[in-house]
Amino acid sequence: MKSDIEIAHEAKLKKISEIADSLNIPEKYVEPYGKYIAKIDHKILDTLKNKNDGKLILVTAITPTPAGEGKTTTSIGLSMALNKLGKNSIVTLREPSLGPVFGIKGGAAGGGYSQVLPMENINLHFTGDIHAVTAAHNLLSAVIDAHIKFGNELKIDPTKVYWKRAIDMNDRALRNIVIALGGSANGHPREEGFIITAASEIMAILCLAKDLKDLKKKISNIVVAQTYDKKLVKVKDLNVQGAMAALLKDAINPNLVQTIENTPAFIHGGPFANIAHGTNSIIATKIALKLSDYVVTEAGFAADLGAEKFLDFVSPIAGFNVNAVVLVATIKALKYHGGVKKDELSKENVEAMLKGMGNLFVHYENLKKYNVPVIVALNVFDTDTEKELNQFSKYCKVPHAFVRAFEKGSKGAEELAKLIIENAKENCATPLINSNMSIKEKIEILAKEIYRAGNVIYTDKAKAKLKFLEKHGYSNLPVIVAKTQASISDDPKKLNAPSDYAFTIRDFELSAGAGFVVALAGDIMRMPGLSRIPNAVNIDIDDDGNIVGLS
Amino acid sequence: MKSDIEIAHEAKLKKISEIADSLNIPEKYVEPYGKYIAKIDHKILDTLKNKNDGKLILVTAITPTPAGEGKTTTSIGLSMALNKLGKNSIVTLREPSLGPVFGIKGGAAGGGYSQVLPMENINLHFTGDIHAVTAAHNLLSAVIDAHIKFGNELKIDPTKVYWKRAIDMNDRALRNIVIALGGSANGHPREEGFIITAASEIMAILCLAKDLKDLKKKISNIVVAQTYDKKLVKVKDLNVQGAMAALLKDAINPNLVQTIENTPAFIHGGPFANIAHGTNSIIATKIALKLSDYVVTEAGFAADLGAEKFLDFVSPIAGFNVNAVVLVATIKALKYHGGVKKDELSKENVEAMLKGMGNLFVHYENLKKYNVPVIVALNVFDTDTEKELNQFSKYCKVPHAFVRAFEKGSKGAEELAKLIIENAKENCATPLINSNMSIKEKIEILAKEIYRAGNVIYTDKAKAKLKFLEKHGYSNLPVIVAKTQASISDDPKKLNAPSDYAFTIRDFELSAGAGFVVALAGDIMRMPGLSRIPNAVNIDIDDDGNIVGLS
Repeated sequence: MKSDIEIAHEAKLKKISEIADSLNIPEKYVEPYGKYIAKIDHKILDTLKNKNDGKLILVTAITPTPAGEGKTTTSIGLSMALNKLGKNSIVTLREPSLGPVFGIKGGAAGGGYSQVLPMENINLHFTGDIHAVTAAHNLLSAVIDAHIKFGNELKIDPTKVYWKRAIDMNDRALRNIVIALGGSANGHPREEGFIITAASEIMAILCLAKDLKDLKKKISNIVVAQTYDKKLVKVKDLNVQGAMAALLKDAINPNLVQTIENTPAFIHGGPFANIAHGTNSIIATKIALKLSDYVVTEAGFAADLGAEKFLDFVSPIAGFNVNAVVLVATIKALKYHGGVKKDELSKENVEAMLKGMGNLFVHYENLKKYNVPVIVALNVFDTDTEKELNQFSKYCKVPHAFVRAFEKGSKGAEELAKLIIENAKENCATPLINSNMSIKEKIEILAKEIYRAGNVIYTDKAKAKLKFLEKHGYSNLPVIVAKTQASISDDPKKLNAPSDYAFTIRDFELSAGAGFVVALAGDIMRMPGLSRIPNAVNIDIDDDGNIVGLS
Repeated sequence: MKSDIEIAHEAKLKKISEIADSLNIPEKYVEPYGKYIAKIDHKILDTLKNKNDGKLILVTAITPTPAGEGKTTTSIGLSMALNKLGKNSIVTLREPSLGPVFGIKGGAAGGGYSQVLPMENINLHFTGDIHAVTAAHNLLSAVIDAHIKFGNELKIDPTKVYWKRAIDMNDRALRNIVIALGGSANGHPREEGFIITAASEIMAILCLAKDLKDLKKKISNIVVAQTYDKKLVKVKDLNVQGAMAALLKDAINPNLVQTIENTPAFIHGGPFANIAHGTNSIIATKIALKLSDYVVTEAGFAADLGAEKFLDFVSPIAGFNVNAVVLVATIKALKYHGGVKKDELSKENVEAMLKGMGNLFVHYENLKKYNVPVIVALNVFDTDTEKELNQFSKYCKVPHAFVRAFEKGSKGAEELAKLIIENAKENCATPLINSNMSIKEKIEILAKEIYRAGNVIYTDKAKAKLKFLEKHGYSNLPVIVAKTQASISDDPKKLNAPSDYAFTIRDFELSAGAGFVVALAGDIMRMPGLSRIPNAVNIDIDDDGNIVGLS
């Protein structure tokens, strides 16, 4: 089969103005970025208030494995198939970060015959949203250190600055650094670090904001540091929320592109699904719901991370109705959960596959607790044998479809699309978490109902931080659990369907601007590193501007 | 008078497609970025080969003072006035860096009735060129540290990494840092620093490159470090020139915008004028020369920095004919050079002004050595008295015009435009520097002919570095002198017309990719800091997206 970039180059793209026209978006709301990308002014929402929303289909997956699940490919394929079946559908996705593009993955715009285009632009800079988030983030950092240097009127304790700098790059050398060395002209030396921009609270805020006003308000509430007398310092104390929001004036507007089959796609924002909520901007999904019958959206990592956060946190605050959930699995991943080593995943092994279906069933059962139709999408690979696929069908008693969107585009996702049309119901999913609960009550429910733990343990550090949150009035915020994506549990080594173990909360972090508390149940990497041979060495551009090495 | 941003908002902009049409740019070369900005594919140059170049007018200034000279305003006004007089003219300028926007200046898109628009976009992100340079720059940094961590096959000496990281922000706390702390998982600890992106060699390369091929070649030749056995490590040894060039695939294309009077403007690239060559991209100026009768371009800082580099370095390698030079001065600046304190510059003081004209005459005389017509543009301020202006005219025996472009737009620059049309000659300026000379010979000429020194002193460090350059085969590169912009000399305190002093070269730095050696004649700030009350606190955006605080 051809490479992703070869397939992309063979696609005949429509002008983005045609795509916008097909959605009846008035020209005044369309800002072209080249011929095939446009930003859609988020103010269009005001004009669409009285329109009914389309149905919202959330795509999630079983616990990820080194083999890859193809969630994005499935989302794109499903949306294309819905269009083919005569339903207007838009797919909404997150923007790729440069870190993974140069690190391992080489891109994040789908694959094969199920891509969003132009993939080179989407993977490299796109419309600059992530750079804008980085700039707003680092303006705040520069202002904090300048404040400390010039008299420190707010009495910021330099050992209690919570706001780390950000960069959109996999750069492990910036994880732990010491800044402001070289004398007083350079400021007050202190420990510091960089996080990758996808992990920035600004990214979370951009994706949660309703509009510019809400964006600025959320930014102004970010807690950046503590003072010597233990008061919290917010962005509004430094008075740069206006400048930061000004830097985001274009980034707040969703990016319209098209799939390889010329159906519309919004790609906007990209927060992590562990320390943040892990899905594209609420604004993009809201606009898409007004403009189409079916919106297919994707949440990060597995159902216990991205989907849980979407159903318990994003949907309630955005007012979304999730009408169906697609749970993506692969034969290889099931075998991995069934105990097969990474190198042997291509060999037939029905027994291991059936054993690994335990992971699928836990996620399925979890999702059903939200009172929503769940369809299993088995993403078929070349290496899957007929026997494996037959046995999968036999033992998977719940609604499921085989998907071959990578290989066949919409045609490979028609079966899934038909199941979605049949099953997506009018009623919306109901959250498991009640917003009135305390932080501990919320965690208790997630740990038992979703992560299948027997009990929850809090470290001393976590207990102290809980008191800190209570003291400062943050004990009623929604909880975002940051834990490994490699297991349903808090231990990356526990594959398949662990249960009845002790779930440990080690610390809490406050995202007061974004409006949630992060409960840390493990080491969460906020700054990845490049690998020994990074994908950057495979990327090249010829004299005519043709790029290779992206996928 | 109204604020810059108020004036900007009252302007009636034409669609950028109309501006492109007026220049006969075929649609296939026009990539719109919103309604009022477009990138012009640099490959258009191939189609314009056989067209004659227009005349090139270089705008420079006397030695800058805290009062500001208005070089950009004069450049824009002059270009608008040339258009008004029936000559097709394009102004080409550098892109503003976010550092100064949030630091002191609040913007760099001209002022008053002599602006390039849309000023909010130009000042904030624009088309993302500077972010692209930052990303390419920092990808290289991440790859260097990853290489050292993973076995260090090239034997890079971590204490001899020349390539610092970059950020487009005034952030003094990042000048001197220690990275990769926290254990071996984070790499090999070493001293490091960030420079502002305008000071990045990638920025210089972007502005010097002929095309994508040349860009990649120049990037591959950047020297990033030295090995334990004293060999130089280049980007091509790390094999990321392709990925870095891919990140710059759009940044290489010039940005077309319009002035407040709807005349075309290219704004593209922004290297410093001390440690680099200090003018917009060669590609932008080349395209502009093919598309118009008169191109007005601006070089950074005063005539001894930007103009010297333009005439001795940029023009020869780009093949430019500079047909006339505009030397901008103000009454206030002349008084400052005549010894008046900053706070008293608004008071009439003919005597000090006449004394300060010494600075003007030195720059004038210097520029005449290039065998080029020089027109003095006196940028008139409200506070200038009639007596001062009359006396200026009386004592300025060389061709000069009063300019009121800030207040009156093209009308305020008509007199200057007429002088340019009369005086711009067919012959091109001739460089003072002969490319066959040694580094020392080149510096000798500049020190004596331009900086008016009596002799040149080399520190021991500079002598050792000269040997290093010779050893590695770089002794024939062009020389870029990095010195204070506040004086013709190497001492910022020597105002007006110093002469016959000792000019000291303290060190050399190699920009092997950009193709020059920097001779350091002073402390050159490569990372500015925010001020006590940065302009960021004045910038705001309202609920409808209207921005205030930019100028």
